[in-house]
Amino acid sequence: MREIVLHEVGLRDGLQIERAVVPTDVKARWARRLAESGVDMIQLGSFVHQEKVPQMADTDELFGLFLNEKGLERGLACGVRYFCLGISASETHSRKNTGMSIAEAQDRIVKTALAARAAGAAVQVSVQSAFGCSYEGEVPEEQVLDIVSRYLDAGLTMISLADTVGHATPDRVTRLFSRVLQLDAQVECACHFHDTYGLGLVNCYAALEAGVTYFESAFAGLGGCPFTAVTGGNVCTEDLLHLWHRMGKRTDVSLDPIVDVSRDAAAYFSRELPGKIYKTGPIPPVRPALG
Amino acid sequence: MREIVLHEVGLRDGLQIERAVVPTDVKARWARRLAESGVDMIQLGSFVHQEKVPQMADTDELFGLFLNEKGLERGLACGVRYFCLGISASETHSRKNTGMSIAEAQDRIVKTALAARAAGAAVQVSVQSAFGCSYEGEVPEEQVLDIVSRYLDAGLTMISLADTVGHATPDRVTRLFSRVLQLDAQVECACHFHDTYGLGLVNCYAALEAGVTYFESAFAGLGGCPFTAVTGGNVCTEDLLHLWHRMGKRTDVSLDPIVDVSRDAAAYFSRELPGKIYKTGPIPPVRPALG
Repeated sequence: MREIVLHEVGLRDGLQIERAVVPTDVKARWARRLAESGVDMIQLGSFVHQEKVPQMADTDELFGLFLNEKGLERGLACGVRYFCLGISASETHSRKNTGMSIAEAQDRIVKTALAARAAGAAVQVSVQSAFGCSYEGEVPEEQVLDIVSRYLDAGLTMISLADTVGHATPDRVTRLFSRVLQLDAQVECACHFHDTYGLGLVNCYAALEAGVTYFESAFAGLGGCPFTAVTGGNVCTEDLLHLWHRMGKRTDVSLDPIVDVSRDAAAYFSRELPGKIYKTGPIPPVRPALG
Repeated sequence: MREIVLHEVGLRDGLQIERAVVPTDVKARWARRLAESGVDMIQLGSFVHQEKVPQMADTDELFGLFLNEKGLERGLACGVRYFCLGISASETHSRKNTGMSIAEAQDRIVKTALAARAAGAAVQVSVQSAFGCSYEGEVPEEQVLDIVSRYLDAGLTMISLADTVGHATPDRVTRLFSRVLQLDAQVECACHFHDTYGLGLVNCYAALEAGVTYFESAFAGLGGCPFTAVTGGNVCTEDLLHLWHRMGKRTDVSLDPIVDVSRDAAAYFSRELPGKIYKTGPIPPVRPALG
């Protein structure tokens, strides 16, 4: 098993909050370039209500497009053979987002997850608002661990804890993931942080130290959750990859294609996006003396 | 001894790269408001060549102003009773910055430091470019540790490692500070990170874990070193304090006065500054439900 698995969620979690609906051909162009980087998984979209998230209306079309394209199977493992399903750990967030209580939402998700797995897919189940909620504030750790335990009881062991609104801090990340791994040391842990308050990278670092394998991030730091009161961008993929590179990790994945997509996206949306590296470039190995 | 000591360097390292020279009365207003937050130390300026850094030309005047003002003694411990002196760990950076080799610069700094201490002041000595250099790229850890050893041999045990150009990564921060503390467990370690590539907060977190006590940062994330090829802002004071607050640390220090100064500075310079929290505000404890 790899120490770090890179899961690019920009085309889903990055775009779903944008008002301007990105056309399918632009998404396809970005997806192709992202796949060239060698990231392990790319989320193409989400099968949600078209009226609630019009940005995701073309998800079927996108999948159709790429299923007929050779050479992209690897980048497209996610969503075709790998499903991501989740519920919120906040009762208010759950009801606003899905109209269901946490317990109802989890029953449903677990059934869907087991059906997907029976059909041969890998399934990741997530706990959203695992580190706090805009409506409820603190979300008790026990509440998150209860949800995780029910996933584990159902045999679902690929588990993502998502910091939907950016409230996580590294000490809490360490503690919560350690407690998940105490429940079952075989859990494959994923993390999904938002950089609302500038803590995205520090939380990823704490997660790595706690034994997390899967890191979800979005090119250019795009995104946020449209159903919460405070929104903020995802951890920026190229900034995170740049950190891993500087630590000698995942140097097999290229920064350039991701930086290209982020520059393209900044031009497309005509605004500066949160990511740093697409603006600064990576740390140069050595610069010539100026004087 | 406190676990975390907050050292505000914005009026020095934050302003020295700015082209527009900030008038003394504006600096004084910012210094007063920063002191109200309860940060432990505030750098008012730097005694450098006026032609090289015109921003620091009024340092004497500023000190004069505050020495006559009651109630600010605590905030002004730094620079009056506490001197910060440093050299670079990069031969090229040292020669460009001071015209001296590392060895020559250190001889001089050590003499000055011992004289200041003999006069009753506390003295912090630093190693700049301790984690990399724009001219030389990687700076060998042994080179940094040699400089630290010479400080320790001279009896100077308040030691700051500065990441002048933002090349540090958390793994390296942990390793280098651990090695410093292996040289002498009694060293009072300070860290000074720049956020050029978005790694400022993650490096502070790693430093805390490694046993570092003093954290140098600048309001609004202002600043950078004018004598290096790549420049970037300091770690942002209010973003760092916000992280500590969320971890239950240094809740005795107020965020609001620092945020005020950062907003004032952004208006003064008529541009968006790097800090996040002065724009987003801190994480609210609980938000009322919207629906």
